[in-house]
Amino acid sequence: MRVGVIGGGQLARMMIPPAVALGIELRVLAEVEGSSAALAATAVGDYRDAATVLAFAADVDVVTFDHEHVPQDVLAALVAEGVRVHPGPHALAVAQDKTVMRERLSAIGAPVPKWARVADAGELGAFLAAHGGVAVVKTPRGGYDGKGVRVVREASGADDWFADAEQGLLVEEFVPFRRELSQLVARRPSGQLAAWPLVETVQKDGVCAEVFAPAPRAGVLTGEARALAERIATELDVTGVLAVELFETDDGRLLINELAMRPHNTGHWTIDGAVTSQFEQHLRAVLDLPLGDPSPLAPVSVMVNILGGPPGERMPDRYTRAMADRPEVKLHSYAKDSRPGRKVGHVTALGDELDDVVARARAAASFFQD
Amino acid sequence: MRVGVIGGGQLARMMIPPAVALGIELRVLAEVEGSSAALAATAVGDYRDAATVLAFAADVDVVTFDHEHVPQDVLAALVAEGVRVHPGPHALAVAQDKTVMRERLSAIGAPVPKWARVADAGELGAFLAAHGGVAVVKTPRGGYDGKGVRVVREASGADDWFADAEQGLLVEEFVPFRRELSQLVARRPSGQLAAWPLVETVQKDGVCAEVFAPAPRAGVLTGEARALAERIATELDVTGVLAVELFETDDGRLLINELAMRPHNTGHWTIDGAVTSQFEQHLRAVLDLPLGDPSPLAPVSVMVNILGGPPGERMPDRYTRAMADRPEVKLHSYAKDSRPGRKVGHVTALGDELDDVVARARAAASFFQD
Repeated sequence: MRVGVIGGGQLARMMIPPAVALGIELRVLAEVEGSSAALAATAVGDYRDAATVLAFAADVDVVTFDHEHVPQDVLAALVAEGVRVHPGPHALAVAQDKTVMRERLSAIGAPVPKWARVADAGELGAFLAAHGGVAVVKTPRGGYDGKGVRVVREASGADDWFADAEQGLLVEEFVPFRRELSQLVARRPSGQLAAWPLVETVQKDGVCAEVFAPAPRAGVLTGEARALAERIATELDVTGVLAVELFETDDGRLLINELAMRPHNTGHWTIDGAVTSQFEQHLRAVLDLPLGDPSPLAPVSVMVNILGGPPGERMPDRYTRAMADRPEVKLHSYAKDSRPGRKVGHVTALGDELDDVVARARAAASFFQD
Repeated sequence: MRVGVIGGGQLARMMIPPAVALGIELRVLAEVEGSSAALAATAVGDYRDAATVLAFAADVDVVTFDHEHVPQDVLAALVAEGVRVHPGPHALAVAQDKTVMRERLSAIGAPVPKWARVADAGELGAFLAAHGGVAVVKTPRGGYDGKGVRVVREASGADDWFADAEQGLLVEEFVPFRRELSQLVARRPSGQLAAWPLVETVQKDGVCAEVFAPAPRAGVLTGEARALAERIATELDVTGVLAVELFETDDGRLLINELAMRPHNTGHWTIDGAVTSQFEQHLRAVLDLPLGDPSPLAPVSVMVNILGGPPGERMPDRYTRAMADRPEVKLHSYAKDSRPGRKVGHVTALGDELDDVVARARAAASFFQD
């Protein structure tokens, strides 16, 4: 069994351990030499180039992704050659363009913030006037970790973006929310679904900083989020892992913030905290193998991202103190040089009481972030 | 951080996942192309050749092992070049020769079966006469998985082995035992120790077939086994993982059967069943990093080896049925072609009740063994 992964970032890297365990051969098409997933990189090249991607895909059983940026024409070329691609081009099209995502989610009746496609400052001004004078503007493509997202209060607030926005910009109501949640589900081509528990995510400057699994005090939202994610995965024919990022609004409703069709930062806790991690499950799903048990291994898991640290250092440079202080916390390094704000790794702690587990995970993380 | 592993078998393979998680670069010197640890193999060559091993070791921080067979002159050459070697040559010498092992263990007062070094059939006959007419003869070197071990009842029972036995053979009393146990401990060069729970091992034709963790109804033996393994690791200056294979005698005592100075089959359950697996712990230990928490993740873990299966098949060929039947059992393939009796992988199940966990692990294993 051979899985080809386009993209050599940490998500591809974290597929290596379950591939080794299961005896699945993982092949990665990396953007650069020395990528995070370099150990499994069998090719280095441009994922926007159809010939490069076709050559890479020639002898794998299925192609999947570390990111959602492979252009549709490249995906179409793969399908035309008979290559199995999961998630498929039709599903990825929804993840690649935030306006398309809002259209599709609205069409299936999934709860989303009020939104519009706006072509210029005049249309943006009209949306602002109709929605309390504040809104969130997003570039339809290419945003991540808070980039391409901006809160605006004036019609001119996105003038610099309109010039490059052939398809216009996406504008959404500003949603007053209590907190952010994330629901991950895996789906096989043959339809089987498996959902992990709903989690709470704490964002910092638009970047995921901490994840609490399961989301505390979620009540009926637990079942609602799961049903919603399973419906989206099925209706959009998503294969592999689907992440549904959610707002819990001030009045207690779920609204969909974003979708991601790949393993997701809010699921990293599953590596140490679930019977089947999101990375193993993604491999099973794209190979159309029966899905593993997504049950948690402990009452509470907490993941804390390592964002940055001293430039040029790597996490292992600080292992001696961190490991001595917190022998029970699982440390994950993405083999990237630190720089401020860059995701270079994460830590996960398990336990019985949320406060205790949060404290231990943060204590371990603190060794890498001063 | 860079760890060099001599030997490309499944033990080296299973070091890859924790090395990836921790951002440690693993380099393997494999015997052949296409070894179980091929993904991390940076060199292929003969571990008995000092020049080959020295070249491999030139740019790693520490050298460790997938097996105990590297000759002492090669180890001495590494040490002479200033290479850190863990476990060290003096410790490995005890694991490499079963007679030396018996001598050292006797010298420190550790409980071993009555034994002798015998040079010929006459001496073997004398031992038999003094020990009830039955004994176990072992070749001092090169045995594994039941090879090089024989029960004899006649003085002539090892004649075929004496010819090649320059240092004589090891003979031991035949120990009537209730069951076999195994105690694993890790030790850093700086002295820190961490022990996993005592486990019960079920052997089949001299090969480990099943492991129950923790050993049921072990009572005071739990503490005794741990103290014994910690004392051996310290007195013999073992670094990395030490496995102490034990008999629980019919009269309830512990006797040491064998030692192994590396991750061990009886510790494979720790990959899925302990906070820190034996493979992560071995990497931490040989790098002299603080040891991780060896606590179990569930009340019971059971590991079942996959021994053989239809010639030429690999475990993944049977995944569809096994995964559908047992989504919660963790499957491990060593990427080896099956043949009868060959260890090609293992499965691990976790749970609360031994009977249930054993049944689930055996059910999963059965898909690969018919």
